[in-house]
Amino acid sequence: MQLTVDLGERSYPIYIGSGLLSKSGLIRQHVRGKQVMIVTNETVAPLYLDTVREVLGDLQVNTVVLPDGEAYKTLDVLNRIFDALLEHRHNRTTTLIALGGGVIGDMTGFAAASYQRGVDFIQIPTTLLSQVDSSVGGKTGVNHPLGKNMIGAFHQPQAVIADTDTLKTLPARELSAGMAEVIKYGLICDADFLQWQASNIAGLMRGDGGLLAEAIYRSCADKARVVSADEREGGVRAILNLGHTFGHAIESHQGYGNWLHGEAVASGMVMAADLSCRLGHISRDDVERITKLIADAGLPVTGPSDMTDDDYVSRMLVDKKVLDGKIRLVLLKNVGEAYITDDVPKAQLLATLYSLGTLAT
Amino acid sequence: MQLTVDLGERSYPIYIGSGLLSKSGLIRQHVRGKQVMIVTNETVAPLYLDTVREVLGDLQVNTVVLPDGEAYKTLDVLNRIFDALLEHRHNRTTTLIALGGGVIGDMTGFAAASYQRGVDFIQIPTTLLSQVDSSVGGKTGVNHPLGKNMIGAFHQPQAVIADTDTLKTLPARELSAGMAEVIKYGLICDADFLQWQASNIAGLMRGDGGLLAEAIYRSCADKARVVSADEREGGVRAILNLGHTFGHAIESHQGYGNWLHGEAVASGMVMAADLSCRLGHISRDDVERITKLIADAGLPVTGPSDMTDDDYVSRMLVDKKVLDGKIRLVLLKNVGEAYITDDVPKAQLLATLYSLGTLAT
Repeated sequence: MQLTVDLGERSYPIYIGSGLLSKSGLIRQHVRGKQVMIVTNETVAPLYLDTVREVLGDLQVNTVVLPDGEAYKTLDVLNRIFDALLEHRHNRTTTLIALGGGVIGDMTGFAAASYQRGVDFIQIPTTLLSQVDSSVGGKTGVNHPLGKNMIGAFHQPQAVIADTDTLKTLPARELSAGMAEVIKYGLICDADFLQWQASNIAGLMRGDGGLLAEAIYRSCADKARVVSADEREGGVRAILNLGHTFGHAIESHQGYGNWLHGEAVASGMVMAADLSCRLGHISRDDVERITKLIADAGLPVTGPSDMTDDDYVSRMLVDKKVLDGKIRLVLLKNVGEAYITDDVPKAQLLATLYSLGTLAT
Repeated sequence: MQLTVDLGERSYPIYIGSGLLSKSGLIRQHVRGKQVMIVTNETVAPLYLDTVREVLGDLQVNTVVLPDGEAYKTLDVLNRIFDALLEHRHNRTTTLIALGGGVIGDMTGFAAASYQRGVDFIQIPTTLLSQVDSSVGGKTGVNHPLGKNMIGAFHQPQAVIADTDTLKTLPARELSAGMAEVIKYGLICDADFLQWQASNIAGLMRGDGGLLAEAIYRSCADKARVVSADEREGGVRAILNLGHTFGHAIESHQGYGNWLHGEAVASGMVMAADLSCRLGHISRDDVERITKLIADAGLPVTGPSDMTDDDYVSRMLVDKKVLDGKIRLVLLKNVGEAYITDDVPKAQLLATLYSLGTLAT
């Protein structure tokens, strides 16, 4: 399967399917120069690095292997990519290849955006989360101790290659985390897709390759549609942040990496659904169906047990989605239709936090 | 005086003149949000920080004071700007103000390009070099131990405010360094301007405010013309690098900050002129007139005494202007007309290096 993210001059293809990593010529055709730097991590390197190196045999291929985990998504670790590029004398025509999950994709993309003020890169996402999420939209960056993704750039890849075979080695917990984003696309803009997910959740969670490929394709198509309309996040694109403002508060409070991103977003989406119901947009039945789908995907439906309302609110204020000190949230107008508001009554917000935060009292 | 850099949606004004820093409303009108972060250094802060703070009185104004010098143009020091932005909860509508020379401008610009994937910034250059050079073109970034300006972004300011009064506190050596770039504009694209400089070099070096304002205006206009034609440095813009490939080799060999950027470029321009003569483009008389103007501006006309040809060539190969391992140079077709070549005969290059590098043998 293949789809094109339509961004004018910066349009690029996403390939989805089995056996793509070793497919002769596929990655190679998107390398414009003679140098390639593969950036990967200690977990992914032993599994797939040799396969990718092999299909690039005629080029100057160098590699950087970073430690695995969100905790290493920092400016310091980013610098190791620059070290490697300069040690091996990569010039402006080099191509960086991100081989790994979202952390590798975000860091490699930011390194490509910044190295010599911008070079090419190719995304090879190896987790469900990164296949459906990080591959589309051009967001790249690193974390700061005081906030997630606070340092970064918009930079589009030359191509994305989502090989579903890589999901066979993915831990169940990470498959679930990826499903959180899949469910998100249904909730914000695609009620049919959400229905399809509810009917196929068992097969998806068993790792059925065909179902997963369809889920990735539909998620990417939904995201590409939203992003094409709003490349630089001036407006409608922000609906992609459903569950993320709550989620970032959870991740930041718990310390990055203790709750997976998808787990925090899952719990945040239940909060957003609950708040949407309190504001009269969707029914309590809708909230329960959404909560059941998220639970069936093996994901948390409440917040961590040690967070207070202040823990949420103070973190939601430093979040990027904040405009001049207000809390800006993505909520549901209907199931399958999101909207953005910076005018949420505090009483209802707190009611949601008290009911779903499993809050410390 | 005022001119506009015409880049479509990203066009911006450059104001040049006396008393602009304290002029009511001038800086303020280019701030779109309610937060401002002034980034400056230990040398400039005591001179001008209070003046700038005063005209921004109704906003949330925070400051970061960095150590002074090219040695601090690093990813680590850059991070102090992000620390300050996050500690003071600056959001996406913040404006960064670069108050200082080229190092402050480049770092602040890159911080603005990367903070939350891009926020506004205003340039207030306080050296002649940064007034004529860093203010136009949108190049931002930091150095890496293995190469200058290797990490960065293209990011255009909202406005540039070049107050000629700030040149009164500038050391003579730095005034000379700025003149190197002024001379460069004449050499690459403006023979009339070069002629004007030769006639007025004594007054310029005495610090005559009117002459300096005209020199800044004509330099910015020349650069803006070149940059407008080629915002992302695909082609003709590279002529702005006259003398820079040699110059970067010198700076990198001597350690950043020991030779000023303008001094290294000055010496590099004499080398470029000499090589252009050896290739039959300009006369030996032209070279001598160019050399005299550069010397009259208080600038070096030969390289450092401890560099060998290998010291130059190996550094010129890691330079960004390299395409696939070749040395790419900007040379003169005529006085006032530069061209780009990646096909310089090695014998002539070495002849220039032996004659002007004051080389170790």
